[in-house]
Amino acid sequence: MSNLSNQRVAYFNGQIVPESEVRVSFRDRGFKYGDAVFDMTRTFNKRVFKLKEHIDRFYSSLRYVRIDPGMSPAEMTRLSEEVLERNMHLLGGDDDYWLGQRVSRGVDAAPGETREREGATVIIECSPLPLKSRARFYRDGIDVVVPPTRRTPPEALSPRAKTHNYLNMIIGEMEAKTDDPDVWAVLLDTSGNLAEGIGSNIFVIKDNVIRTPRAKFVLPGISRQTAIDLARQEGFVLEETDIDLFDAYVADEIFLTSTSLCICPVRSVNGAVVADGVMPGPVTKRLLDAYVRFVDHDFVAQYLRRLAA
Amino acid sequence: MSNLSNQRVAYFNGQIVPESEVRVSFRDRGFKYGDAVFDMTRTFNKRVFKLKEHIDRFYSSLRYVRIDPGMSPAEMTRLSEEVLERNMHLLGGDDDYWLGQRVSRGVDAAPGETREREGATVIIECSPLPLKSRARFYRDGIDVVVPPTRRTPPEALSPRAKTHNYLNMIIGEMEAKTDDPDVWAVLLDTSGNLAEGIGSNIFVIKDNVIRTPRAKFVLPGISRQTAIDLARQEGFVLEETDIDLFDAYVADEIFLTSTSLCICPVRSVNGAVVADGVMPGPVTKRLLDAYVRFVDHDFVAQYLRRLAA
Amino acid sequence: MSNLSNQRVAYFNGQIVPESEVRVSFRDRGFKYGDAVFDMTRTFNKRVFKLKEHIDRFYSSLRYVRIDPGMSPAEMTRLSEEVLERNMHLLGGDDDYWLGQRVSRGVDAAPGETREREGATVIIECSPLPLKSRARFYRDGIDVVVPPTRRTPPEALSPRAKTHNYLNMIIGEMEAKTDDPDVWAVLLDTSGNLAEGIGSNIFVIKDNVIRTPRAKFVLPGISRQTAIDLARQEGFVLEETDIDLFDAYVADEIFLTSTSLCICPVRSVNGAVVADGVMPGPVTKRLLDAYVRFVDHDFVAQYLRRLAA
Amino acid sequence: MSNLSNQRVAYFNGQIVPESEVRVSFRDRGFKYGDAVFDMTRTFNKRVFKLKEHIDRFYSSLRYVRIDPGMSPAEMTRLSEEVLERNMHLLGGDDDYWLGQRVSRGVDAAPGETREREGATVIIECSPLPLKSRARFYRDGIDVVVPPTRRTPPEALSPRAKTHNYLNMIIGEMEAKTDDPDVWAVLLDTSGNLAEGIGSNIFVIKDNVIRTPRAKFVLPGISRQTAIDLARQEGFVLEETDIDLFDAYVADEIFLTSTSLCICPVRSVNGAVVADGVMPGPVTKRLLDAYVRFVDHDFVAQYLRRLAA
Amino acid sequence: MSNLSNQRVAYFNGQIVPESEVRVSFRDRGFKYGDAVFDMTRTFNKRVFKLKEHIDRFYSSLRYVRIDPGMSPAEMTRLSEEVLERNMHLLGGDDDYWLGQRVSRGVDAAPGETREREGATVIIECSPLPLKSRARFYRDGIDVVVPPTRRTPPEALSPRAKTHNYLNMIIGEMEAKTDDPDVWAVLLDTSGNLAEGIGSNIFVIKDNVIRTPRAKFVLPGISRQTAIDLARQEGFVLEETDIDLFDAYVADEIFLTSTSLCICPVRSVNGAVVADGVMPGPVTKRLLDAYVRFVDHDFVAQYLRRLAA
Amino acid sequence: MSNLSNQRVAYFNGQIVPESEVRVSFRDRGFKYGDAVFDMTRTFNKRVFKLKEHIDRFYSSLRYVRIDPGMSPAEMTRLSEEVLERNMHLLGGDDDYWLGQRVSRGVDAAPGETREREGATVIIECSPLPLKSRARFYRDGIDVVVPPTRRTPPEALSPRAKTHNYLNMIIGEMEAKTDDPDVWAVLLDTSGNLAEGIGSNIFVIKDNVIRTPRAKFVLPGISRQTAIDLARQEGFVLEETDIDLFDAYVADEIFLTSTSLCICPVRSVNGAVVADGVMPGPVTKRLLDAYVRFVDHDFVAQYLRRLAA
Repeated sequence: MSNLSNQRVAYFNGQIVPESEVRVSFRDRGFKYGDAVFDMTRTFNKRVFKLKEHIDRFYSSLRYVRIDPGMSPAEMTRLSEEVLERNMHLLGGDDDYWLGQRVSRGVDAAPGETREREGATVIIECSPLPLKSRARFYRDGIDVVVPPTRRTPPEALSPRAKTHNYLNMIIGEMEAKTDDPDVWAVLLDTSGNLAEGIGSNIFVIKDNVIRTPRAKFVLPGISRQTAIDLARQEGFVLEETDIDLFDAYVADEIFLTSTSLCICPVRSVNGAVVADGVMPGPVTKRLLDAYVRFVDHDFVAQYLRRLAA
Repeated sequence: MSNLSNQRVAYFNGQIVPESEVRVSFRDRGFKYGDAVFDMTRTFNKRVFKLKEHIDRFYSSLRYVRIDPGMSPAEMTRLSEEVLERNMHLLGGDDDYWLGQRVSRGVDAAPGETREREGATVIIECSPLPLKSRARFYRDGIDVVVPPTRRTPPEALSPRAKTHNYLNMIIGEMEAKTDDPDVWAVLLDTSGNLAEGIGSNIFVIKDNVIRTPRAKFVLPGISRQTAIDLARQEGFVLEETDIDLFDAYVADEIFLTSTSLCICPVRSVNGAVVADGVMPGPVTKRLLDAYVRFVDHDFVAQYLRRLAA
Repeated sequence: MSNLSNQRVAYFNGQIVPESEVRVSFRDRGFKYGDAVFDMTRTFNKRVFKLKEHIDRFYSSLRYVRIDPGMSPAEMTRLSEEVLERNMHLLGGDDDYWLGQRVSRGVDAAPGETREREGATVIIECSPLPLKSRARFYRDGIDVVVPPTRRTPPEALSPRAKTHNYLNMIIGEMEAKTDDPDVWAVLLDTSGNLAEGIGSNIFVIKDNVIRTPRAKFVLPGISRQTAIDLARQEGFVLEETDIDLFDAYVADEIFLTSTSLCICPVRSVNGAVVADGVMPGPVTKRLLDAYVRFVDHDFVAQYLRRLAA
Repeated sequence: MSNLSNQRVAYFNGQIVPESEVRVSFRDRGFKYGDAVFDMTRTFNKRVFKLKEHIDRFYSSLRYVRIDPGMSPAEMTRLSEEVLERNMHLLGGDDDYWLGQRVSRGVDAAPGETREREGATVIIECSPLPLKSRARFYRDGIDVVVPPTRRTPPEALSPRAKTHNYLNMIIGEMEAKTDDPDVWAVLLDTSGNLAEGIGSNIFVIKDNVIRTPRAKFVLPGISRQTAIDLARQEGFVLEETDIDLFDAYVADEIFLTSTSLCICPVRSVNGAVVADGVMPGPVTKRLLDAYVRFVDHDFVAQYLRRLAA
Repeated sequence: MSNLSNQRVAYFNGQIVPESEVRVSFRDRGFKYGDAVFDMTRTFNKRVFKLKEHIDRFYSSLRYVRIDPGMSPAEMTRLSEEVLERNMHLLGGDDDYWLGQRVSRGVDAAPGETREREGATVIIECSPLPLKSRARFYRDGIDVVVPPTRRTPPEALSPRAKTHNYLNMIIGEMEAKTDDPDVWAVLLDTSGNLAEGIGSNIFVIKDNVIRTPRAKFVLPGISRQTAIDLARQEGFVLEETDIDLFDAYVADEIFLTSTSLCICPVRSVNGAVVADGVMPGPVTKRLLDAYVRFVDHDFVAQYLRRLAA
Repeated sequence: MSNLSNQRVAYFNGQIVPESEVRVSFRDRGFKYGDAVFDMTRTFNKRVFKLKEHIDRFYSSLRYVRIDPGMSPAEMTRLSEEVLERNMHLLGGDDDYWLGQRVSRGVDAAPGETREREGATVIIECSPLPLKSRARFYRDGIDVVVPPTRRTPPEALSPRAKTHNYLNMIIGEMEAKTDDPDVWAVLLDTSGNLAEGIGSNIFVIKDNVIRTPRAKFVLPGISRQTAIDLARQEGFVLEETDIDLFDAYVADEIFLTSTSLCICPVRSVNGAVVADGVMPGPVTKRLLDAYVRFVDHDFVAQYLRRLAA
């Protein structure tokens, strides 16, 4: 009992329960087919980041796959905040949370039987950010490897929906990590343009112009949008356009954005060191600083403190 | 307790348990990412069909996604047979089972925590075939609709692995079923050739030559292979080749194969009635008869009996 | 004789004759090969709409296929106006005309024979708009279905020329109308982006941004351009860009433009209802109102009056 | 009157009439949209060639575009033979006929009016072969030029149907004939493989293996099939496969097939002379001889006699 | 000896030597594999043009292929200027120079042997512009032919690097020059859009809007950029966008840019005369005049003087 | 002088000279543009391998790029044999030679000057095989990495010609060797099928069927053809077909062929170990043995002896 009070809780189909009780039937379509979508934000110093934007994107994903979550965005928001609050006492002093929502199409009955329950499966949960394991990327930069597997094209399944179908990118990651498990994979789209990695968007800087792949071919990350907005506020030209390996190989600077990393510099692409290898480069540095001011939390320092520990 | 004895059982991570206890953590990668593969055979008059071929294909899928199931094909086979046997007493007299194996990459720990359990999640389960709901297709033929969404190309994720990533085909199905929930979707590949539907392969007959899409672009169904073998034994020319909508629109006969349906005639494609609309056509009829002989079970009669009921 | 005065007339190779006399040889290349181009405008309350823009586009089509019509744009304009005027007395009080120009490369001689006549075949004709049959789309919205057949790519034949080669879109329409003859087909281009239907362009609205496919992949409709101009005058952001099925499925509003319909709201795409299904949505409504003001004719009311009749 | 007896006749919607009376309304969909299909065979020394095969292919084209010609293949055959017979007395002693069938979807009514006539427009006609103008190709070989415009891909409109939509190939021809009106265009398909020209198929010979493009990407010419059959009878390996410009540039021999030319050697491709430029090469010569024997008519001599004239 | 003083000199691996001594080993990777990059500017009235921009682009090419030239851009610039100066006395009064830099990856040793020399092979050289042979293009315009071979796509080798791998474009040129050695080839990219020719970029003008292919698919010529800058300064709308053959066939004006020609009007594309054939058209004329002012040298007059000679 | 007798000689434009004198002008098109082709065979125990097949392929490459070498295949063969003979005394007892022919289009004159020499540049040369550095691959197997850069498609430049344009594959190799310089790159073609590496072809074995990519997309290696012939002689089914990463990941065995390696087993592809990692697998072993018998020289033992050294 007492150890339960040390366990995080999650929302699961109408109730808030200990995480260990959030178990889905093997007949849940989310398990059988990845027939589910999710979204994920984070906290900065315990404050949740752009929850509205995440919930809006989540409902876009739901419409695309035609799943009815059985609740309004407002209710999804309220429940997300409640889950976060109910778990906040478990969070370490210098830690932060991921906060996620997942909805599957629900449970298929076996033929001739009645469904276990009607409607979608809804889960809202949080977990601590992996600050320690990712801290070195802020110091050293990320080594990006582009695997041969190409990102699923929009005519098959739109990358703009955040779904439970990740095998395409998982296979790309295994290919990229052949020799080094710490590299990050960024896949090309089927036209040979840079697309995205698992949970990350890429930005390439040349002659002070910042370019990032068009939203059509990637998940339009909230951190990506934040970087775009901040770049424009800082006076940079920022283009959403087709970028290819030539752009990466001759870039002045490259960075990735992700929910956990916000903005993190890239050291190399397929072994070619970016510019002179100084991490972060001046444009990336300005955007990092702007990001820190925007979220009012020095996440870079927060990460780097883990290296000392 | 007594009603448990009326519940089917399944193998789940080392034990055989009632189906209702087969529930996976929401952190299972099979749920979060569809990071899992499966396979599925059926029984004919209670006898399991080509279990070895299914297990072989299953281990191909596992190698492709680099998941180690933690057991040999022989053990997987033995456990599959055991699960089937333990559930046989629950099967109706004129019924048959699907028998499936599912393996996910297992449960991710939250950052900083230890994994709930190591290794893959393994499930072996069975469920009755939907004989009644599909019976009319043997009488009337199947109406095929080709949706605009294209089958995921092999350079993104090979259709030859039977994975838990089905959203591409689920979206195609929703598009095809716009006006009629009973149509079957068959998707084109990204070159515009006929590929496959959810769990079904397509065969097109013209001037006594039988053609089916190349294995590169579809799940190489065991029923598909059985139909190929039988067609050749019956003396037909059978080609695995690119087939497009022209082939479908001018075909003499078309049929689908699937684990449950074996071989089932198609009545129309995108509203164009196949040849003179007689179901099944003469070549399909010969293959159906050969299939019945091969499995030593008149599954057509078994299906059609449901229509009377 | 008297009934001839009740028959519309048309320009045909140098003369204005009753429509029933406008008959082309079966050796006319326009018939044998679709080796011809055309254009088509309409009247609003008897006044012809943007005739200059249509004639300009017509001469672009002519240049693309390298057909010399044997007359200047000015003469083509003058003759078009004359044909319209000569038929005006036949038009009902609340009706309007389509006004079209068609030019084929002319008549091939059989080998060894002399050509029936030299030069292009030129036809200018008008016909009443189908107000009654299309009226319900203003009340209910249009149900769009995207067929599997893809719009002919520009590297084979540019969609920007309005030619007599419509089989690509006719086949797409037959596929779309499988279950419901009243749906409108909108084809994808060979990259999987939304392109166009027979005589219609598509606009997709999300977060008050209006997007329509790039002119490279569609006939640059005059009504399309009018909608673009009006949208910008109304202060909307309007982008000509790649749009795909994801955009359609998560759109706030969608509308089609065509010569006859001007702007007409879309109710559903492949069975997915657009937003909350209110027809027309607020942005579409504003553009409809602007269109009515621009042409100084309430064509919406004109259509809807047909429903009462 | 007397000169009418010197005029060829044609079948037109139920009657046999003088050719000059075969005129279609400008509202015929065959004219407006190229919404029609046709087929075309020839005579050899007055005897019609493979009429059954042509009629079969014609009905395939009709099914593809879903046009009902309103008569059976047997009746179409009988009428074709009758048209031929009724025109035979007009044919010169050393001449031969093309014999063609054309069916359009018929005449659209203007909105609110009744259709001029119901059903398809059917035309059966013949015309003398252009023996004189094509004779030199047998002496000199054909100069092939491959234009940049690509053959319409099957996912837009199948090249296997012989339709009235020829603008794609007409534009390709104009590009190829930039400097020399006597070259023949052969277009590439959208994958960059050799496809076909207007009414011609291409065969490429290397090391005694004869290759021709796959039927999926070209009209499966009856002359093409005859050449395939004869090549195999002569003991050659003949492959239907992807052929590209490399194959053409390093070929030992190349020839085209068409209804009028049967088999005719190619002298050059894009200015690169085929092998040593001897026309025809030894393999082509054997196939030409076999063709002459097969049709029991020395069409090569028939052509070459025109050069003397 | 004395005639050596009449020979141009070049920089070659550390020394300035007579051109005839600039000979690379057959084991130089620049020869064996085209494993080298280059750049090329020109003089206007003896003054070098935008050397900095050329050297910057050159170092981009070097980074893309990961060749270290062993010297800084500043040193490359200084040496280029020195080579030019040392050759200036050999230049005719009304002549100008091309000035080029070439760097290969150096010499491969045969297995088991030591390399002839370490590091890259570096050459800096100049040669007189071909003013006489190209003069007529300013008077008559250039006839452009688009060959069937497509420009190498960026996913294989980026056209943005100026490399020693030109066979793709050389083959395209041979195809285009089938009948006329004076035409210029402009290749399409693999999507069917206009790309570039050997050393030339294309601009297409319609309704006073100037369009040129996106930089992603072409070498971003310095002359191209100069034309872009001047066009904008002159108040024109200039778009870098996809342009296809339709654009070319219906254009008002077309011109090419290249280092030697700066801006030169196009008379025809695949035999289709551009607009009314007046050379140069009014927009091209304005840009030519602006170019002349910008470089402060009337290169048009300089070229045309050669026609009189 | 005496050391010259220790230097290999080569044929160079009409003479046999010491290798150090084989130097081409920097204006040679082979250097400037890679406008050249080559071929390369080897000796087995001093006897040259399939010289005729290599010379035939060489002349195919020459025809494709339209370069006239100025000599017949017979003369090229004779000179190749002479070069080999004149260098044989320099070859170590257990060593063997590569023997290569290279022909470029020759030297461009600078504008206004006369060409240094007319006609093609012809080089015939040999060098010792890198037996020592490649020996370990026979013991350990080759680790294959598939880079993101795709093999140049045939519509841009046919891989079937062996040209001096290798940058596409050089860039692919640099990407693959990011972490390990000993891996071999195998590139995908632009459809995502396995193509080839620099000088190597790939074979994939599954269920005793041996598959290798179609000749259309790769250099048709002579060693590749030898392996195909031997496999068929050994009774295996061997298919030239599309192979993708799925095939590689689930293969029983994989091997590469190349002139130097003949047949060499592959240990892993993108980090996925092939089957159980036993090198070589049983099918590969049988083909290796057959190859050794065919060339009557145990090249495997010859390689492995280098490991002891």
